Amino acid sequence: MTARLPGFYDEQRQRVEEALEEWLPAFEAEPQILTEAVRYSVLNGGKRLRGVLVMEAGRLAGRDDEVTAGLAALIEMIHAYSLVHDDLPAMDDDDYRRGKPANHKKFGEDIAILAGDALLTRAFYVLGHLSAPGEELPVARLLEVLTEHIGVQGLIGGQILDITAADREADLEQLKAIHRWKTGALITVSLLLGGIAGGANEELLKGLRRFGELIGHAFQIKDDLLDVTADFEKLGKEPGADERAGKLTYPALLGVEKSQQRARQLIEEACRMLDEVTTAGGRLNELARFVISREK
Amino acid sequence: MTARLPGFYDEQRQRVEEALEEWLPAFEAEPQILTEAVRYSVLNGGKRLRGVLVMEAGRLAGRDDEVTAGLAALIEMIHAYSLVHDDLPAMDDDDYRRGKPANHKKFGEDIAILAGDALLTRAFYVLGHLSAPGEELPVARLLEVLTEHIGVQGLIGGQILDITAADREADLEQLKAIHRWKTGALITVSLLLGGIAGGANEELLKGLRRFGELIGHAFQIKDDLLDVTADFEKLGKEPGADERAGKLTYPALLGVEKSQQRARQLIEEACRMLDEVTTAGGRLNELARFVISREK
Repeated sequence: MTARLPGFYDEQRQRVEEALEEWLPAFEAEPQILTEAVRYSVLNGGKRLRGVLVMEAGRLAGRDDEVTAGLAALIEMIHAYSLVHDDLPAMDDDDYRRGKPANHKKFGEDIAILAGDALLTRAFYVLGHLSAPGEELPVARLLEVLTEHIGVQGLIGGQILDITAADREADLEQLKAIHRWKTGALITVSLLLGGIAGGANEELLKGLRRFGELIGHAFQIKDDLLDVTADFEKLGKEPGADERAGKLTYPALLGVEKSQQRARQLIEEACRMLDEVTTAGGRLNELARFVISREK
Repeated sequence: MTARLPGFYDEQRQRVEEALEEWLPAFEAEPQILTEAVRYSVLNGGKRLRGVLVMEAGRLAGRDDEVTAGLAALIEMIHAYSLVHDDLPAMDDDDYRRGKPANHKKFGEDIAILAGDALLTRAFYVLGHLSAPGEELPVARLLEVLTEHIGVQGLIGGQILDITAADREADLEQLKAIHRWKTGALITVSLLLGGIAGGANEELLKGLRRFGELIGHAFQIKDDLLDVTADFEKLGKEPGADERAGKLTYPALLGVEKSQQRARQLIEEACRMLDEVTTAGGRLNELARFVISREK
């Protein structure tokens, strides 16, 4: 990881890891090949940025406990499911993920498809089991907001746009739409789940939503840049995959320097905006800056 | 459909179709290729047996409205998602489904994987949006029960067992385990969702659960039998697929006649058991008998 990692990050990431251990199927659970495949693609040393965003949005809104850690775990499961399915031969056809064989290379395509399905299902399982007796958690509201961001007009829709855009002329507006759904939606909903669980008012939720959209956009630009500039060791997979696939990317469209500039502008706007709705946004602003300083 | 279809079936099935129209993404919704693929695999003239089971369990427990119709629609979405993914080349590799090209034959593998993901996600979207203001729906409980039946130790786990069993020696206990998870779990949870939404007490829920397990088991035996005895026109796909895939099936293990006998015994046990916990089980018992009299 880069030296610019915020100081509180490791502690929060550790809590997300513990929540994942608690909520994933146990290693010995039957059918074992499936639980092994599920655990393989989640417990893989990921940055847990989305999980930490859930925790920090919850903390900002006034909640920092087992419930926000559970929500962080379920967001990381959804993130992992989307990567397992995206890496499949029929999709992006990536053989490596974080320096290890992709799920389908390790377990076979059939198991990888079902492991992705199981991760998505498990995320909702966690949401269904998070309510402690006597504790009011707005499960229907959380479910509503979550599913609005990861469906046809969100995470999944973005992947479709990404696949179909590879055949078309490059266009900045189209690229923004892909980013908004494919990457921005999951980052945005991470902030919203934390905020809702913490009891944030509508103004704060609106601020968290906008903050998520801006840093999500910057995150994808940074991803595109890393695909051009990083090497295998840092990236954990072959760089240059986007270009080979003829994908629409920011560096291809604007060049490297202008893309870096655009990412920085988005992060500065996100921080300025958050400071207008809360005086306690310091940690989230640190996370935002990490989004574009990271090296993988 | 067979002549033995219960009289109320068409009316209830129509209500499930209407709820699906209401809850699926509109045809013109972007990205259009995805909404088209999603709708293609749900709005295809299916029997809606699981949806009708939701409605009838709800009705038995005292609720018969937009909420039970919505729950019926979401169960049919989950059923459709599992079929779309099961038909993929890396899984059962079926080219036809209900007489039409399978989703991946029509739209391509990448779209089919994402259409399945979108259907599963949409099912949870429906659950998140079903609560009307001022109306108490136990969303967390429904989510809990639903996800316990469609995950690693349910629908998905059953598919894994089914795939891996094709390589192994036939064994009756193993076959029962596959059936319990792969088919029984979704049928059982259909009855439980209806019952819970209708406010059924624990005794009635226990009866509905047992009823679901028994008819789910009979349903899969009947499916195996149809694969041996039906022709393409009735089945809507090539018969004999199980045998070609070396799959563990009841006819292969017990012969056709003993399998038929076993299915009948299970249905009679289900009806007798339900009559012990309620005097209003008439319609559900009719549905149970339809499970083994159907011709597709």
